[in-house]
Amino acid sequence: MSASATRLDLYRSLARQLRADSIRCSTAAGSGHPTSSLSAADLMGVLLAGHLRYDFRRPDNLANDHLIFSKGHASPLVYAMFRAAGAIDDAELLTFRKFGSRLEGHPTPILPWIDVATGSLGQGLPIAVGVALAGQRLLKAPYQVWVVVGDSETAEGSIWEGFDLAGHEGLTNCTAIIDVNRLGQRGPTELEWNTDAYAARVQAFGWDAIVVDGHDHAQIDDAYARARSASRPTAIIARTLKGKGVSFLEDKPGWHGKTLDADQAKQALAEIGAEPSRVFEVPSPPEWRPAPLPQPKPVELKRYVEPLATRKAYGEALAALGAARADVVVLDAEVSNSTHAEDFKKTAADRFFEMYIAEQRMVAVAVGMQVVGFVPFASTFAAFLTRAYDFIRMAAISRANIRLSGSHAGVSIGEDGPSQMALEDLAMMRAVHGSTVLYPCDANQAAKLVVAMADVPGISYIRTTREKTAILYGADDDFPIGGSRVVRGGGSDDRVTVVAAGITVHEGIKAADELAKSGVKVRLIDAYSVKPLDARGIADAVRDTGGRLVIAEDHWPEGGLGDAVVSGLVALGVNGIVLRHLAVRDMPTSGKPAELLEAAGIAARDIAAAVRALIA
Amino acid sequence: MSASATRLDLYRSLARQLRADSIRCSTAAGSGHPTSSLSAADLMGVLLAGHLRYDFRRPDNLANDHLIFSKGHASPLVYAMFRAAGAIDDAELLTFRKFGSRLEGHPTPILPWIDVATGSLGQGLPIAVGVALAGQRLLKAPYQVWVVVGDSETAEGSIWEGFDLAGHEGLTNCTAIIDVNRLGQRGPTELEWNTDAYAARVQAFGWDAIVVDGHDHAQIDDAYARARSASRPTAIIARTLKGKGVSFLEDKPGWHGKTLDADQAKQALAEIGAEPSRVFEVPSPPEWRPAPLPQPKPVELKRYVEPLATRKAYGEALAALGAARADVVVLDAEVSNSTHAEDFKKTAADRFFEMYIAEQRMVAVAVGMQVVGFVPFASTFAAFLTRAYDFIRMAAISRANIRLSGSHAGVSIGEDGPSQMALEDLAMMRAVHGSTVLYPCDANQAAKLVVAMADVPGISYIRTTREKTAILYGADDDFPIGGSRVVRGGGSDDRVTVVAAGITVHEGIKAADELAKSGVKVRLIDAYSVKPLDARGIADAVRDTGGRLVIAEDHWPEGGLGDAVVSGLVALGVNGIVLRHLAVRDMPTSGKPAELLEAAGIAARDIAAAVRALIA
Repeated sequence: MSASATRLDLYRSLARQLRADSIRCSTAAGSGHPTSSLSAADLMGVLLAGHLRYDFRRPDNLANDHLIFSKGHASPLVYAMFRAAGAIDDAELLTFRKFGSRLEGHPTPILPWIDVATGSLGQGLPIAVGVALAGQRLLKAPYQVWVVVGDSETAEGSIWEGFDLAGHEGLTNCTAIIDVNRLGQRGPTELEWNTDAYAARVQAFGWDAIVVDGHDHAQIDDAYARARSASRPTAIIARTLKGKGVSFLEDKPGWHGKTLDADQAKQALAEIGAEPSRVFEVPSPPEWRPAPLPQPKPVELKRYVEPLATRKAYGEALAALGAARADVVVLDAEVSNSTHAEDFKKTAADRFFEMYIAEQRMVAVAVGMQVVGFVPFASTFAAFLTRAYDFIRMAAISRANIRLSGSHAGVSIGEDGPSQMALEDLAMMRAVHGSTVLYPCDANQAAKLVVAMADVPGISYIRTTREKTAILYGADDDFPIGGSRVVRGGGSDDRVTVVAAGITVHEGIKAADELAKSGVKVRLIDAYSVKPLDARGIADAVRDTGGRLVIAEDHWPEGGLGDAVVSGLVALGVNGIVLRHLAVRDMPTSGKPAELLEAAGIAARDIAAAVRALIA
Repeated sequence: MSASATRLDLYRSLARQLRADSIRCSTAAGSGHPTSSLSAADLMGVLLAGHLRYDFRRPDNLANDHLIFSKGHASPLVYAMFRAAGAIDDAELLTFRKFGSRLEGHPTPILPWIDVATGSLGQGLPIAVGVALAGQRLLKAPYQVWVVVGDSETAEGSIWEGFDLAGHEGLTNCTAIIDVNRLGQRGPTELEWNTDAYAARVQAFGWDAIVVDGHDHAQIDDAYARARSASRPTAIIARTLKGKGVSFLEDKPGWHGKTLDADQAKQALAEIGAEPSRVFEVPSPPEWRPAPLPQPKPVELKRYVEPLATRKAYGEALAALGAARADVVVLDAEVSNSTHAEDFKKTAADRFFEMYIAEQRMVAVAVGMQVVGFVPFASTFAAFLTRAYDFIRMAAISRANIRLSGSHAGVSIGEDGPSQMALEDLAMMRAVHGSTVLYPCDANQAAKLVVAMADVPGISYIRTTREKTAILYGADDDFPIGGSRVVRGGGSDDRVTVVAAGITVHEGIKAADELAKSGVKVRLIDAYSVKPLDARGIADAVRDTGGRLVIAEDHWPEGGLGDAVVSGLVALGVNGIVLRHLAVRDMPTSGKPAELLEAAGIAARDIAAAVRALIA
């Protein structure tokens, strides 16, 4: 199978235009990555004119192929492709990187043809694998996922998490195009042009490898055709020249992330033989629609009376969601019997995905699956979500809607020791743009919050507890996001406000009940919605109790409930606060949960002592 | 080369004891991972009695081999080895996982024979590679680094970052022992017993692979001998049975992380043929000392007068440290021409290590190098340190002393857009146990803080700015950690306190100077030490200015300077605070730095407006 002369002419013409427009827009911007765009221009010319089946007028068509630039810094090339497809015009192309433009320095989904934000290297490939996994296993969609990978970013372990998963799942609809241009930001890559090494690696991870000259349109054309019909995921390993097409840029160090000045651009465009930019025809996707999802049913949650761990309530709520809604998917990082995400398999086994111990790809696949409309919940130990923080951060830039659950929070996990204890997760998750951070203290509350998360936009997070905890609330109670609950006190004679969440609510109850015996009334607030926080509700309590405030949290002192409450109060102008902030201040060890809560100074006795100190 | 019968008897006897003690201590604890210990007991018996050259009486002997359990949950086996080596006694072994014991659920370096904390999977291998890299390239030490890797954790991308680096660097002193016991926490691993697949993967990453029966002492013995004399790093891929040695545990699902009750333990010990535990002889390290380091010289910093980016001052301060001290090492994640870490190569090229785009292994190698006494500085864009948060968190549990630098902080980077902007790094780094968080605003200050970091214990972090900023301070000024500086105002007629750091100090100056023209005096504080914060200094200012406070930061509102200042003030009992907190509240785009500072509402005009609102 070889391309016709007409077809090769078309590719040549389009590649020339992509090169010219990559230079034109980056020179107009005065910043950007033209040379990283030029190396892949032939690869993208052949893809856009010959193989990408995409209706640019209907980016929401689920039959469309997906194109993800894992090497997001080659954004001039991305936008040049959109220009060539007629999706944007020349005037918009030249707004690249300017304030107010949709054409940001790195691609983001404020453009309707972009699935996800890239620019933090190593993320596009595992996200693309998530899009492919949803297409092959859930939607049975005809789309192919094409992902453009930089050679430098193959140093990121997350790339291998992606290769591994696609190989394991046999995702024949996933094609990686590795642009082996040999030069990283500050010098040669590790493997330079050792395309055999790349091939050996991807083959060892379960992929087919096709090595091509990345500037030979016939070879590329043939490779794409083979990739689409392959019986395994395929990596096209393209040997390229960075800056290809312009003599003074080709394979030259020192040009990464540098733009051409006006004179250099003029010379470059002359070498390229640039003609006025025009619109090229892009292959159409097939006529196809996914099978309509069954109508959602009411979510039937269990009604809890006996003590239960909130992580178990999380799992059972997932199961209830799985029975009620066909769009919910669950991802596990090989701890589903600890997070209890495994319960979802009881109602929707076909929508449960094992990511093995690879938290980055778990979040990446969640992001990929929401691209095509699914509602992902991803869970692991809360401590191990730190592994995926860059992916979570980028998911917010992707305007992704994903739900995360972290179990085994805080010192209350007990014997496993500090490596398994999340003590920074609230800080980490609060500092995600537009995030929602929830921390239930009982099973009924946890279940209600899990159901609410399914409809929360953006990045939402629920922190669950390892230990069984008493049931405090009725199964019909409501727990609005942004709310709080008064668990003890509430009268005008409350002396001190105690703000707690999760495990410390139970310590607070013990303290309040003990203090009540000696006539000291406290108002105990369950701040289950850490972000958004019910600052007004807490402020009312603090004012009622003369400013006396105890905050108790199973978290480091920084960035968690304490910071949230104090900042919330001060923002509201609450004054006269006299605070005792109980948090984990020393490195924990192993021990029984009760021993560790006491060692950290966040147990009932510590809360009671803090209250007594405030009223002394 | 095959082991003598006597030697095989010794191995058999030791392996039997390691099995028995793994069961005994975990049954006494009532929690832990006996089955994951049993699978590797033969591997460790042969290692301890035959190949690990280690003086347990002198764990600080730099000639000692290193043994790192990347699968840290097999801690019963680790402690059983220490018992067998005579490092701990039987009574201490039975304190496993109890409150107050050194034998925590997962290993930590509160035990002198443990290099680093493990338990978050996927970290031990890349850290071990760091220890090996320091041994081979810096110390020219005779030690071998043995790292025990679980099969499940090979799903973590960070494992492949480690394999890749060791292969690239040709670390012949690094041996990975992969315990392929086929069963993960909740079921079979991805590759189960496909040892050929493991071999193909590690070979593709530049390692030799030796596949062995992990319960055949002669095969293991031979493999270790080959590994120590190999010309490449070697992975010993050991096919094992989880729970090996106990009939009702062997290769049985449902036993991960479960302990035997007293009756089960009795039966198991009978099957194993346990004898009273005794001390075995461990091979000695060779007589060897590293060449003494040259005496440190005074650090000669540049003296800055002209505007300069603090990232450039970071690089030049590293160069000065490199010239003065032989223990400082610098690690780059392929952006050293942006972070300016490359300047270190001018004075100490042999102590500069290119980690390529792999932030997890950059931090891991830093942790590994400090194990053998080096003083690592690791730098990348601040946004990309989020990729390594789990490694940073674990480094704190490892009691590691490492220094991190994040450049390109905040929206002030400009055109590159949000994927490259760190807006959560202060929150992330504050919430690390014992961390120090610094954010200089001028080059002289940055340089001084970099030098100070070299002697700061724990995890220290410096946030640097992309743009050139004016010089505010003299080259002889001191900037103690925990301090702050008054940049404008200071008199009794200051009306408002403005707290800023880094780039916003410069916006604050413009605002203060503009306000001064209309007679409004503000006290502008440079809070360069975000943690520990000079809360007392800021409190004095806030009290002097009637509680009126503006905080301006190039960061999300959560967890950064704002939270730090407000929590610090309230903890000191400062009251009557009237706050305007200026932070980045909407998702940024591309644009010029000044445009983006204004769009975020953290520019000079916004600070001035906030001040005016407070005094209106």
